[in-house]
Amino acid sequence: MEKRQVDKNLIKQIKKWIQEGTNIEISVLLESMYAQDIAEVVNGLTLEESRLILTLVEKEKLVKVLVEIEEPNRESFFESFSPFDIANEFIEKMDSDDAVYVLGQLPEERKDEVINKLTDIEYASQLLSLLSYKEYTAGSLMAVELVKSKITSTVAACIEEIRAQAENVDTIYVVYITDEFERLVGLITLKNLILASPNSLLSDVYNKEVISVPTSCSIEEISNLTRKYDLVVVPVVDPLGRLVGRITVDDVVDVMQEEADENYQLMSGITEDVDATDKVWILARARLPWLIIGLLGGIASSRFIELYEDQIRIHPEMAFFMPLIAAMGGNAGVQSSAIVVQGLANDTLGTKNIVPKILKESRVALINGLICSILILAYNLVFNNSTDLAFTVSIALITVIIFASLFGTFVPLLLNKLKIDPAIATGPFITTTNDLLGIAIYFSMGHLLYDIY
Amino acid sequence: MEKRQVDKNLIKQIKKWIQEGTNIEISVLLESMYAQDIAEVVNGLTLEESRLILTLVEKEKLVKVLVEIEEPNRESFFESFSPFDIANEFIEKMDSDDAVYVLGQLPEERKDEVINKLTDIEYASQLLSLLSYKEYTAGSLMAVELVKSKITSTVAACIEEIRAQAENVDTIYVVYITDEFERLVGLITLKNLILASPNSLLSDVYNKEVISVPTSCSIEEISNLTRKYDLVVVPVVDPLGRLVGRITVDDVVDVMQEEADENYQLMSGITEDVDATDKVWILARARLPWLIIGLLGGIASSRFIELYEDQIRIHPEMAFFMPLIAAMGGNAGVQSSAIVVQGLANDTLGTKNIVPKILKESRVALINGLICSILILAYNLVFNNSTDLAFTVSIALITVIIFASLFGTFVPLLLNKLKIDPAIATGPFITTTNDLLGIAIYFSMGHLLYDIY
Repeated sequence: MEKRQVDKNLIKQIKKWIQEGTNIEISVLLESMYAQDIAEVVNGLTLEESRLILTLVEKEKLVKVLVEIEEPNRESFFESFSPFDIANEFIEKMDSDDAVYVLGQLPEERKDEVINKLTDIEYASQLLSLLSYKEYTAGSLMAVELVKSKITSTVAACIEEIRAQAENVDTIYVVYITDEFERLVGLITLKNLILASPNSLLSDVYNKEVISVPTSCSIEEISNLTRKYDLVVVPVVDPLGRLVGRITVDDVVDVMQEEADENYQLMSGITEDVDATDKVWILARARLPWLIIGLLGGIASSRFIELYEDQIRIHPEMAFFMPLIAAMGGNAGVQSSAIVVQGLANDTLGTKNIVPKILKESRVALINGLICSILILAYNLVFNNSTDLAFTVSIALITVIIFASLFGTFVPLLLNKLKIDPAIATGPFITTTNDLLGIAIYFSMGHLLYDIY
Repeated sequence: MEKRQVDKNLIKQIKKWIQEGTNIEISVLLESMYAQDIAEVVNGLTLEESRLILTLVEKEKLVKVLVEIEEPNRESFFESFSPFDIANEFIEKMDSDDAVYVLGQLPEERKDEVINKLTDIEYASQLLSLLSYKEYTAGSLMAVELVKSKITSTVAACIEEIRAQAENVDTIYVVYITDEFERLVGLITLKNLILASPNSLLSDVYNKEVISVPTSCSIEEISNLTRKYDLVVVPVVDPLGRLVGRITVDDVVDVMQEEADENYQLMSGITEDVDATDKVWILARARLPWLIIGLLGGIASSRFIELYEDQIRIHPEMAFFMPLIAAMGGNAGVQSSAIVVQGLANDTLGTKNIVPKILKESRVALINGLICSILILAYNLVFNNSTDLAFTVSIALITVIIFASLFGTFVPLLLNKLKIDPAIATGPFITTTNDLLGIAIYFSMGHLLYDIY
C-alpha cells in the first residue's frame, strides 16, 4: 500500500470511473490505498457515489474506512443494511472505542436496535456500558480491548495471554498487570517481556510505576497527562481501581486538535468547523452569525453616540479618536480573555478563586493602560490638539483598557463556572462588547471634562 | 513513584526545606517524584534554589529532569560543571533527540566545546550531523536510537538484536527492517515478533506497509501524518531511502501544541509565550507591542477623520456609524485570515495558486456583505435616519467587508510565500489595518454621496 495525496484530480478520476462503470480499475486502486485515504476520497464524493465505492472496498479495510468517513456518508451506506447486518458485519468487527463512536452518531432508536441485534452478547453489554459514560471523559473514549495478566503469572504465561488476545487487540505496547481483585498494579512493556527469561515471575520483572486515569477523567486532563509524561497509552480504572480500558494517544491527539481548532475559530468569529476547501455558502454561513452580532453591537453604539450629537456638532474633534478608543478596548479585552481561555484549557489556572485573578489582571491592565495613555497624551500635546481633548482621550483610554481587561477576564471565568465553553467569550464577542463599552466611557468622559472647562 | 499536583504549596514547602537545609526530606520527596514533576518544581524556584535541588536528584533521573527544565535553570546548573563533565555525565546519557535539544540551547562556542569533549566519538559525530538539520524538520527532531534488523535475519536473531540494543533504546514499539543497502523496507511490531515462531525468516513475517518521512519533512507534515494514520512512531529516511532515525509521537504532540498556542496567541495579540500564572510585568510586556500597534492605527485613523472635520460638523450623524464600520471590517478580516492560517497549518489549502482563493473569498464576502448591508439599510430606513446616511452606511459596509476579507486572505498567503509565519497577520494586525481601511472607505463614500445630493 502507498499513502497518497488525495487531491481533486484523484477524486475527479474516481468520479469518472464511477460514471463509466469501470469497477475493476476502482477496486485495484482501492486495494492499494490506506483506509484513511479511502475515507478522504469518500468524503469528497456524493452520497450515491460514496455508497458505490464502499461496496468495492474489501471487508477488513471497510470496517476501518467506515470509522473514518463523515456521518452522512456512513448513514447513507448503512441504509442498505439491516440492523442485524450493521451489528454483526461492521460494529462487531470494530474496536470498542470506534464502535462507540459510530453508534453514538446513529439516531437513538436505531442505535438500540443495532446493539440489540449483536450476537456477541458480552460485547453488546460492554458497548452499552461504554455508551453510558459522559461525553469527553475517559470512560467514553476508552477501548476495552487490552492485554492483561495476573501478577502471579510467569512471563511465559503472559506471552501465551498475548497470543490468545492477539486477534482482538490490534496494537499492543504493554501488558497490564492486575492483582487478584482485577485492580491495576503495574505494567510490563513488550520490550521487557521479550528480554525477561520465560520462567521469571511477572512480580519480579514488572514495572510498578503506572499512570492511570479514572473513567470520569476529562479529555483535557488526559491530554495534559499524555503530554507531560510522554505516554502512548493510558490505562483507565474504575472507582475501585479495577482496570476497565485503555486510551491510546492518537485518540487524545484528535480531540486535542479539534479543541484547538475550535478555540481558534471561536477567537476568530467562525461558528462552524469549516476549512478553506469548503463550499462558498458553508463558509459564508459559518461566518455570518458573528458578523450579525458585530452589526448589532455597531447599531447599539450608534444609538449611544446619537445621544451626544450636539456635542459632536460643537466638538467634532471628539469623533477623531472614537475608533482608537473602541479598537484599544477590543484589543485589551481579547488579550485578557485569550489568556484565561488558554489557562483553563491547559489547566494551569485553577478555578477555585476568581478574585486574585481579577486583581492580577487589573495590575497588568493598569501598567499597559498607563503606558498607552501617556503615549497618546504626549502625541496629542505635541501635535497641538486641544488640552481638553488630550485629557479626555487619555483618561478614557486608561479607563477603557482597565474595564475591557477585567471584562475579558471575568466573563470567561464566569462562563466556565456555569459550565459553558469559555471560548465563546473570545474574539468578536469581546471585541463587540468592548467597542460599545469604550464608546460609552469615552463620551461620558468627554461630556464631563468639556463641561468642567 | 507517584504523579503529583505540583502547586504553590509544594513549591513553598520545598523552598522552606531549602532554607532550613533539611536535605534529607527533600531527597526522600524527590525520590518519590517523576522527572517531569521535579522539572515543574525546578521551574518554580530561583536559580540558586534550583541548582541545589538538582544536585539532590539521583543521577539517572537527573538526566531526564535536565531535558525538561527551562533554559536559564539548566544553564545555571551547568555553570558548575566543566564541558567534559557536561558532555560525559549528561549529554552522553541522553537520547540523541534530547541531547540535540539541550545542545541547541547552549551558546554556540560552549556547544562545540561540549561536543568536542565527548569520549564517545561516534555519538559526537551523530550529534553533529543531527545539529546540521534545519530546525523543525524531521532530521532535527529525530532520535537515532532505534532497533533495526536485516530482512535476511530470523525472528530469533531479531530478538537478539533487541537484547543488544535494549540499553540504548528506552522505548521500542517496532523493529525496522532494512535491506542490504540499509534502506528501510518494512517493519515488524513487537507483538508480531512475539507471536512469530523463532525460526521464521523476517522476510516471511514482516509488514511491508511502512510510512516514513524524509529528513527534510516539516513538523506540520509529520504531525498531519501521525494524526491521519494514527502513528506512534515515524521512521526517518535519507534521500537514498536509508533509515537514519525515528520520531516519536510525543515530540510531535509537543511541537503541535506549541504551534497551536502560538497561533492562538498571535490571533489574540500576545507576542510572547505566556500563561496566566506568569508574573504581572511579563504578562504586561507580552501584550504591550500589539496595544501600541493598535494605538498607532488609532492615531492614523484620527488623522484621517480630521480631514473630514467640516463634514462631521455639518453631518454629525456620520459619526454614529464609525465604530460599526470599523468593527465589521475588523471582524470580516479576522475571519478570512483565520481560515487561511488554519488551512496553511493543516496543509489542506495548497499554496500553488493564490488567485482562485481570492476569487472564492470574494464570493463569500459578497454574500455576507450583501446580507449585512441589507440588514443595516432596513434598520436605518425603519428607524428614520436620513436616506443619505442610510445609503452611505450600507454601501460603505459592503465595500469594507469585501476589502477586509480580501486583505485578510491575501496578506497571510503573501507572508507564507515570503516564508514569514502567516499567523502574525491575524488578530490585532488585521483588526488595526481594517479599522483604518473601514474609516477611509466610509468617509470617502460619505463625502461622495452627500456631495451628490
